[in-house]
Amino acid sequence: MDPYMIQTSDSDSEVLDVHGNIGGRNPMPGKMKGRKARWSVRPSDMSNRTFNPIRAIVDSMRVKPNPNKTMISLSIGDPTVFGNLPTDLEVTQAMKNALDSGKYNGYAPSIGYLSSREEVASYYHCAKAPLEAKDVILTSGCSQAIELCLAVLANPGQNILVPRPGFSLYRTLAESMGIEVKHYNLLPEKSWETDLKQMESLIDEKTACLIINNPSNPCGSVFSKSHLQKILAVAARQCVPILADEIYGDMVFSDCKYEPLAALSTNVPILSCGGLAKRWLIPGWRLGWILIHDRRDIFGNETRDGLVKLSQRTLGPCTIVQGALKSILRRTPQEFYRNTLSFLKSNADLCYGALSAIPGLQPVCPSGAMYLMVGVEMEHFPEFENDVEFTERLIAEQSVHCLPGKCFEYPNFFRVVITVPEVMMLEACSRIQEFCEQHYHCAEGSQEECDK
Amino acid sequence: MDPYMIQTSDSDSEVLDVHGNIGGRNPMPGKMKGRKARWSVRPSDMSNRTFNPIRAIVDSMRVKPNPNKTMISLSIGDPTVFGNLPTDLEVTQAMKNALDSGKYNGYAPSIGYLSSREEVASYYHCAKAPLEAKDVILTSGCSQAIELCLAVLANPGQNILVPRPGFSLYRTLAESMGIEVKHYNLLPEKSWETDLKQMESLIDEKTACLIINNPSNPCGSVFSKSHLQKILAVAARQCVPILADEIYGDMVFSDCKYEPLAALSTNVPILSCGGLAKRWLIPGWRLGWILIHDRRDIFGNETRDGLVKLSQRTLGPCTIVQGALKSILRRTPQEFYRNTLSFLKSNADLCYGALSAIPGLQPVCPSGAMYLMVGVEMEHFPEFENDVEFTERLIAEQSVHCLPGKCFEYPNFFRVVITVPEVMMLEACSRIQEFCEQHYHCAEGSQEECDK
Repeated sequence: MDPYMIQTSDSDSEVLDVHGNIGGRNPMPGKMKGRKARWSVRPSDMSNRTFNPIRAIVDSMRVKPNPNKTMISLSIGDPTVFGNLPTDLEVTQAMKNALDSGKYNGYAPSIGYLSSREEVASYYHCAKAPLEAKDVILTSGCSQAIELCLAVLANPGQNILVPRPGFSLYRTLAESMGIEVKHYNLLPEKSWETDLKQMESLIDEKTACLIINNPSNPCGSVFSKSHLQKILAVAARQCVPILADEIYGDMVFSDCKYEPLAALSTNVPILSCGGLAKRWLIPGWRLGWILIHDRRDIFGNETRDGLVKLSQRTLGPCTIVQGALKSILRRTPQEFYRNTLSFLKSNADLCYGALSAIPGLQPVCPSGAMYLMVGVEMEHFPEFENDVEFTERLIAEQSVHCLPGKCFEYPNFFRVVITVPEVMMLEACSRIQEFCEQHYHCAEGSQEECDK
Repeated sequence: MDPYMIQTSDSDSEVLDVHGNIGGRNPMPGKMKGRKARWSVRPSDMSNRTFNPIRAIVDSMRVKPNPNKTMISLSIGDPTVFGNLPTDLEVTQAMKNALDSGKYNGYAPSIGYLSSREEVASYYHCAKAPLEAKDVILTSGCSQAIELCLAVLANPGQNILVPRPGFSLYRTLAESMGIEVKHYNLLPEKSWETDLKQMESLIDEKTACLIINNPSNPCGSVFSKSHLQKILAVAARQCVPILADEIYGDMVFSDCKYEPLAALSTNVPILSCGGLAKRWLIPGWRLGWILIHDRRDIFGNETRDGLVKLSQRTLGPCTIVQGALKSILRRTPQEFYRNTLSFLKSNADLCYGALSAIPGLQPVCPSGAMYLMVGVEMEHFPEFENDVEFTERLIAEQSVHCLPGKCFEYPNFFRVVITVPEVMMLEACSRIQEFCEQHYHCAEGSQEECDK
C-alpha cells in the first residue's frame, strides 16, 4: 500500500484534516495537482520488514516470575549484567588516556583512524591470513560490521545462508534489506557441526554469501580445523564468499583451539566480523570491525570501495574508543583473557554436569563462547506444547529465564547464558531440576525407563 | 546486472576459476543445477548508489598546495581540528565518571538508556513542544539519526525535499536507499531564506518529508520565527512531515534567536535530529538523537515503533557517552557555550568584513553555525571555468582550502569554515584577497567599475 494513499475506509475518522486551520487558500484540495489531501504517514516497508524474533517471542511471553523466588536471568548475551565480569583496568585506563589526550574528539575517517586500523590489522595478522590497515574497517559494534557486509554483498532478492540454530540478527538485518534467508542445519549430535550436504544443497545462483558463526551463539560450539576446511571447500566449489561472524574468536576453552576461518583458506574471499564486545567484556562501547581477506582479489577494489562508501553513511564508531584501541589490544594482560575463559569453562562444566543429570534434558557440551544449548525431550513434558511454553513456565514457577530455541529457529531446545556468578548458576540448575522433576512424565510405552 | 552473472565478455580474463583446486569432483560445473561456475563477486546496487559528492569532488581536485605557504584548511566542518576549541572539562570528566562507575559497559536498549533519554527530553522540553523519554531515540551521531528518520519515513521510489545549498549527507543517504532527492532553493539575497513557492511546487504525492536544516550548513543562516512559520504552513497545507536537522541548534550569534521548529507547530509532525557533535565540540563521539514531536498523533505508534525496530539493527551509540550524557547536559557551564559562540561570531565578523571588501566576492553574512558562504562573480574571473576550478587554484597558489559550492549543489560559491584560530582566519582572508586581486578581470562593458 502506498504509505500516502488517502484513507477513505475504516480509519478515516482518525485522519486529521488540518486544512481548515491554514487560511483556506485551497478550498478544494482534491483539485490541486499532486496535492495530498490529508495527513497519512505510515512507516516504510523497510521498517515494517525489520523484525527481531527474540523481541517478538519474549514480548509475547506474558508471564510473571514467581514472586517467592528472586529472578535469575540466563537470557541475555551480555557478560556485564551481573558485575562479576568487569573489563580490565587497562581497558578503562586506555579510555581515560584517550580522553585526556584531547586528540580523539573530532571526526575520524568513516572507516576509522589509520593508526587504529593498523593496530587491529597487526593484532589479527598471521602468515596464512595477512592483514594491513587497508583490510580493516572499524564499525559501530559487530552488528554494524555484519550490516555493512550484508549490504555490500547482497541485493534485494538474493539470498544468504545462515546457521540454524543461529543468532537472530542475521535474519533481522537481511529481511530488513529484502534479502532472503535460507537456513542450513547445525547437528547437535555432532557437537553442532554443519550438515554440509544440506548446506550445499541450499546454494543457488542467487546466494550472496554464507554466514559462518564460530564460536557459535547460541551453541557455544567451536568448529575443528578439518570441519572449517570442509566448509571452505563448499564455498570454493560453489563460488560463494563467506561472512565469518567471529565475535567470539579466541573465546574457547583450554581443551580446544580456535581457528580463524581466513587462515585456512587461500582462495575463498572472507569478510570476518569481530569487535571488543565479548572478549574485552564491553559490548556497550560499540567498537566492531570487518577484516577483509581476499588474497585472490575476488572482492577486488570494487567491493572494498563499496564497504568504504557504506561506512560514510554514518561515520564510524566513537573516536574515544578508537583512540583507546591501541592500548586495549596491546596492554590488556593475558591473565585477563585466561581468567574470563577459566570462569566460563568452570560454569559451563558445572551447568552441563548438572543439566545432564536431569531426566528429559539433553544439554550439548559447549567448547567456547558464553552459551549452552539444552535439548528438551518434549515427549516427557506433555503439559507443554513447545519450548516457548516450557521456558514460560520455568519463569512463572522458578523465576529462571532462558531463551526458548524458537528464538534461534530451533525448537525443543533452550539456551543458557553461562556468564552468571557461580552461585546463581548452581541455583538456576537446581531450580531447573526441580521444575523438570515436577513436570516429567514417562513417555508412552517406556515405563521401564521411568522406573530407573 | 545480476552481480553473480557468469562473465563471458571483456573482463573474463580476470575471473578466477578455482575449481581445479578443489579435487575436481564436478568436472563440468555448468551442468550442476544452480551452480555458480566461477567467482564473480560484485558490490551491491545500494553500495554503488552510495555517493558522497564532497568526497567525489575533493578527490577529483588533483592539485598540490603551494609549497611555500603553509596549508590553511577551511574545508572540514570539524571544530576540533585546530585545537583552539577544546570541549569543556566537565564533558571529559563526565566520561571518566561513567567509566569509573562500571555501570555503562553492557548493552543499553537499542534506543538508549531510559535515564539518558529522560535527560535529553528534559533538556529540550518546552511548554510548546513537550518531550518525554519515549519521544527520544539515541543514535550513533546525528548522521544515523537522519538515516533512521529517512528509513522510517520513505520507501524507495518516493522523494524528499532538501535545501540547495545543503548538506550533502541528505542526498548520500536518500539515494543509497533509492529515495529521490528534489532540491528547493535557498535565496542568498534573502539571507538564505527558503523560496517557499518553489519549495511547495516540488511537493507531490510521493513526497515523504521536507528536510529543514536550521541553523544551516553550509550557509550559517538562521531562520526567523516568521519564516519557520511559513515553512510549517507549507508542510501543513501539503500534509508532509518535516525532518528538522537541528544539529546546530542553539548555535546562533547574540543578535539572533534560535527557534526549534517543533515549538512553532501544533499540527505538523516533526522528527528533530540533533546531537553532541557541534555544540559540545565532540563530533567524533557519535552521540546523536531523534526528538519525536507528534502532538496530533500523525506519526502514531506505528512510526515510533518503526524507529525502534530500525534502531535494533545496530544497537545504538556508545554506552560510555550515554552514561556521561546527564552530566554533560547538566554540568557544562553556560560560559562554555558563550565562549564558543563569541569566538565564532568574532571570526564570522572578521571573515565577512575582510571578504566583503574584495572585488568579485559576495559573502553572505552568517548568523550561526560554523560557516559562511561566499559568492564568486565568475564573470570577473574568466580564467576559471567554475567554482571548483576557482577553489582548486586557490589551493595551488595560496594553500587555502575551501569547499566549492558544487559540494552543496550550489555553483559560483565557496564555503568557509570559521572555526580556525583568528590568526589563521586573518591570514586566509588576506591570501584570498591576494588571489582575487591577481585574477580579477573587469567584466566586458564595465570598465568604469574597474577603474574605481
